[in-house]
Amino acid sequence: MLKKVHCVRLDGDKAELEDEIAEEVPLVIFVNGKHFSTAMISPQMREEFVTGHLFTEGIIDGPVDIESLKVESNTAKVLTRHSTTFLESRKVILSGCGSTSSFLDKKKLPKICSNLMLDRTMVLNAMKAVLRSDNFKRSGGFHSCGLFNESGAIIVVDDIGRHNALDKVIGFGLIRNLDLKDTFIATTGRISSDVALKCARANIPVIASKGAVTTLAVEIAENSGLTTAGFVRGNKMNIYSGGRIN
Amino acid sequence: MLKKVHCVRLDGDKAELEDEIAEEVPLVIFVNGKHFSTAMISPQMREEFVTGHLFTEGIIDGPVDIESLKVESNTAKVLTRHSTTFLESRKVILSGCGSTSSFLDKKKLPKICSNLMLDRTMVLNAMKAVLRSDNFKRSGGFHSCGLFNESGAIIVVDDIGRHNALDKVIGFGLIRNLDLKDTFIATTGRISSDVALKCARANIPVIASKGAVTTLAVEIAENSGLTTAGFVRGNKMNIYSGGRIN
Repeated sequence: MLKKVHCVRLDGDKAELEDEIAEEVPLVIFVNGKHFSTAMISPQMREEFVTGHLFTEGIIDGPVDIESLKVESNTAKVLTRHSTTFLESRKVILSGCGSTSSFLDKKKLPKICSNLMLDRTMVLNAMKAVLRSDNFKRSGGFHSCGLFNESGAIIVVDDIGRHNALDKVIGFGLIRNLDLKDTFIATTGRISSDVALKCARANIPVIASKGAVTTLAVEIAENSGLTTAGFVRGNKMNIYSGGRIN
Repeated sequence: MLKKVHCVRLDGDKAELEDEIAEEVPLVIFVNGKHFSTAMISPQMREEFVTGHLFTEGIIDGPVDIESLKVESNTAKVLTRHSTTFLESRKVILSGCGSTSSFLDKKKLPKICSNLMLDRTMVLNAMKAVLRSDNFKRSGGFHSCGLFNESGAIIVVDDIGRHNALDKVIGFGLIRNLDLKDTFIATTGRISSDVALKCARANIPVIASKGAVTTLAVEIAENSGLTTAGFVRGNKMNIYSGGRIN
């Protein structure tokens, strides 16, 4: 995860030193023999990443759809049980492209189905657990993202990308057949539209971030039933949508 | 850029308030009638974004290759002078996919050609200018990225995405026919491989970030002749590649 590199530190003075920085590697994903995407990720948990990524991108509906998944070096080869179609664009485009509101076709958004209610201390403690990540503290080059339930952390993952870290924890949950409706996410990364969509698709009812929430994420969250909390720092947080945190 | 939303603030107590958050909108880009990509961006500077994005993704070699560019609402339609080919993947894949080192085919990386040398105070001042961004301070939901030369800021842009902000300043420079070899970038976003590649392709010789640099970015930078400085904070910085900052 961390690699030592030579670096020159300027600080009034000039010093040469070894610094630990975040490792970034390509992962080329083939689905049924066809190139699906190349992700730049941190090297660990590649199978979880591929499973979560294909799920949150809508290519599979769960690990049960995967016939085989082979990860070797920087290539992942996936065979699915049913044929898949993905064309030149693999981005989630919800509907027509005429305007923001038609783009955000509320009827097509995933609806979260869950009875989860959280006490705010659970969310604050989850954020503290995420911020304890050693990689995060040592290099400053990662995002940390954790999957939690009412009892605490299920897993915390670091990745150079906030989307990657989220795909990894979702993949982790899917592979282990966890009931994601009883879980929530705490992350160091901002909550943008794609992050909100990934949670909604995975039926994860709450996401809390150390950072900000964007307008489109709030719109998606409101229509999917996702609770979003931003600026979770110390004992504070701002809740922008949903009512699952008390 | 900022939009007021209703929010609940938990802070020991519970209060309802209006908060300003970063606006995020989709921009659907068609090139020669074919869907190229859908980017989630902050709404301003769409033409600059499209120009910079198509350039850094290798679709055009400059604004001269654009026959027409029409941005309406959330759709951009581009006609190029020459036919373009982009297949199912528009990601930069430099070469074969067998391993990290063959992926990073050094012979195919852009080589930066510039005589720029910077005094460290220029870089520190540039970072201060970027951090002064009002949007950045008010919402915490943006990345700020600026294009500078030895005389100071040419333009500073905020966007919800660090790649978007970089594409916008590069597009700004290209449209105005600036000689990018005499410029440098200061940004609040981390320097990952794609960010380093975008600078190299634009012949921008120096990038400085408030955040970290990844291993693959350093590898690309060393092979392209890009100077990378991370953790530029206060009077300090770490230089991971290149020797253009004294």
